[in-house]
Amino acid sequence: MPEKLFPYQQLLDFTKNILQEIGCSEEDADIAAKVLLSADLRGVDSHGVARLSGYVRLWEIKRINTKPAIKVIHESPSTAVVDGDSGLGLVVAPYAMKVAIEKAKQVGTGWVSVQNSNHFGIAGYHAMMALEHDMIGIALTNASPLVAPTFSVERLLGTNPICVVIPAGEEPPFVGDMATTTAANGKLEILQRKNGVAPPGWIQNKQGLSSTNPHELKAGGALLPLGGDKEHGSHKGYILGSVVDIFSAILSGANYGPWVPPFPAYVPMPDEQPGKGIGHFFGAMRIDAFRPAADFKKHMDKWIRRFRSAKPVEGQSKVIIPGDPEREMKNLRMQNGIPLLGPVIEDLKFLGEKFNIQLVSN
Amino acid sequence: MPEKLFPYQQLLDFTKNILQEIGCSEEDADIAAKVLLSADLRGVDSHGVARLSGYVRLWEIKRINTKPAIKVIHESPSTAVVDGDSGLGLVVAPYAMKVAIEKAKQVGTGWVSVQNSNHFGIAGYHAMMALEHDMIGIALTNASPLVAPTFSVERLLGTNPICVVIPAGEEPPFVGDMATTTAANGKLEILQRKNGVAPPGWIQNKQGLSSTNPHELKAGGALLPLGGDKEHGSHKGYILGSVVDIFSAILSGANYGPWVPPFPAYVPMPDEQPGKGIGHFFGAMRIDAFRPAADFKKHMDKWIRRFRSAKPVEGQSKVIIPGDPEREMKNLRMQNGIPLLGPVIEDLKFLGEKFNIQLVSN
Repeated sequence: MPEKLFPYQQLLDFTKNILQEIGCSEEDADIAAKVLLSADLRGVDSHGVARLSGYVRLWEIKRINTKPAIKVIHESPSTAVVDGDSGLGLVVAPYAMKVAIEKAKQVGTGWVSVQNSNHFGIAGYHAMMALEHDMIGIALTNASPLVAPTFSVERLLGTNPICVVIPAGEEPPFVGDMATTTAANGKLEILQRKNGVAPPGWIQNKQGLSSTNPHELKAGGALLPLGGDKEHGSHKGYILGSVVDIFSAILSGANYGPWVPPFPAYVPMPDEQPGKGIGHFFGAMRIDAFRPAADFKKHMDKWIRRFRSAKPVEGQSKVIIPGDPEREMKNLRMQNGIPLLGPVIEDLKFLGEKFNIQLVSN
Repeated sequence: MPEKLFPYQQLLDFTKNILQEIGCSEEDADIAAKVLLSADLRGVDSHGVARLSGYVRLWEIKRINTKPAIKVIHESPSTAVVDGDSGLGLVVAPYAMKVAIEKAKQVGTGWVSVQNSNHFGIAGYHAMMALEHDMIGIALTNASPLVAPTFSVERLLGTNPICVVIPAGEEPPFVGDMATTTAANGKLEILQRKNGVAPPGWIQNKQGLSSTNPHELKAGGALLPLGGDKEHGSHKGYILGSVVDIFSAILSGANYGPWVPPFPAYVPMPDEQPGKGIGHFFGAMRIDAFRPAADFKKHMDKWIRRFRSAKPVEGQSKVIIPGDPEREMKNLRMQNGIPLLGPVIEDLKFLGEKFNIQLVSN
């Protein structure tokens, strides 16, 4: 089946209906569908509606609770720990980010670590919730082990993303959203599908040797931390992935390192569970807890304009501000629809038939 | 002149005496000397006593004020902005980190952005101040532009380090201290001295093309963000360096991007000053604002032990926990002395003669 375009609203309604069928309240289904679809809009196809059936399968084996009692279990004026009660990360994360924002309103900043959650979609959605409050937003999450620390044969870390969102004035916000690996897993999946060659520095094989074969990852190999190898700074990517793991899971009481539960329902759970579910970490910093927001934004505009107007290297039209490509993609896809690959469409149709909900394309 | 070993205490006293000669109070000279020497002890020779004469030259041209009135100029319960009054970063940074720690005692976390400062030595010293309070410590700083963002010919960012320090229980703390470039400038300086070849991904030439000639940096080239090129994730190193710049300088009102003042006194100041001095950013998070410190430390020990015992790749003895090599170096150098290269010894002797203070080796 070839690629087809689907209007945003159709996919949103479809997703929302499926989520209500598996027991989500209308409110939870609405927010979860928005989080999921925001990935498709922003071009992060690996984290969007393509994962919907994966969430449903986790619900089927009772690893996702669609009626969670999400709650704060520990707090101070600027911090909280949230127990996600095995809820959809797509619902738990916005709840926790709201707690961070409320804390920031009160005391300048808010920092929330989350236990007992599941995959939360794209980090960018949650961090961007801070923008309308003139706050800087931060979102981190750990994930199941695919990444080998520098010098390790074993996979001990997830792709553990870091997202930092910073408001500007007349310019659009700075949205830095990055896995702490050289390449995101989604890019490797694309190479696997077309039997392509991975650049050196993306993966290692099961002996821990650098490899360019994208299939090695499924044969006991590992993704590499940002940097690729020691000579190119992989110990720094390893530091970043570790900090994300510790802030998300050891501060909260979630599982960490090699013990983080996998997303695919068919992958067995790790041998041990030192915590509960997967972990996230959110931050919100009120700009005017540092200086008047108008001053800050004026200087952010100046920063952005200076970087965007830097002399580009030959063959490139300009220096990109983090968040620019995703925003352009969102505008395009809101207008033209979201392209889905044949296998994703098949998967969603199968899911729709199961729950008697129709999937409509353009 | 060959390399020689100097006892820690001798170099500390020498540094402290020089700093008092240029007008620092005894208390300020003491803390600044400790910060500076902590770099030598930990093996970060580029940020240690080798820079002492550089600080003195900045004082000579009145860019460093050795009697600063450092103060908080804006605050909320969990945040503050500190004006360093052009003081030594070596003094301003510990002051600001103390403010962050005091805020964390009160409301769980403390976040301090600093304007009007100078080079603060190694980030690790300041972040590690959090440890004795059972807090996580964070230290960031911007620096003068040596780094080209992805696709840029121009240098717009400093090596902008990130340091995150996390306490453990029976295990030593996690100390992640990293420049946001593929390679630190100090490593390139070593290659320049011996006319070596830089690995691809460290630098680009003045046309913005990848280069392996370490001298290109001084001929209009640039250091590259962690990742090296787009294919290897340099846009992620660029995100990290940008976040450090913005948190350190746009939140505080310091100079940012291409306008950060240079460390060498002979390098002209940038054409424009949108802020004051250079900027830093510090964070302190009380562990028990999230969960009981004993629980956290027990799990940190488990995390550290699991990572340290991971199966290593052939040719490596073990997986390293961030902070391990620097701690081992410190123990060694406290015992055997700190090795200084001939040119550094010459430079310090010259400085000593100027102020009539003797430099004594082993």
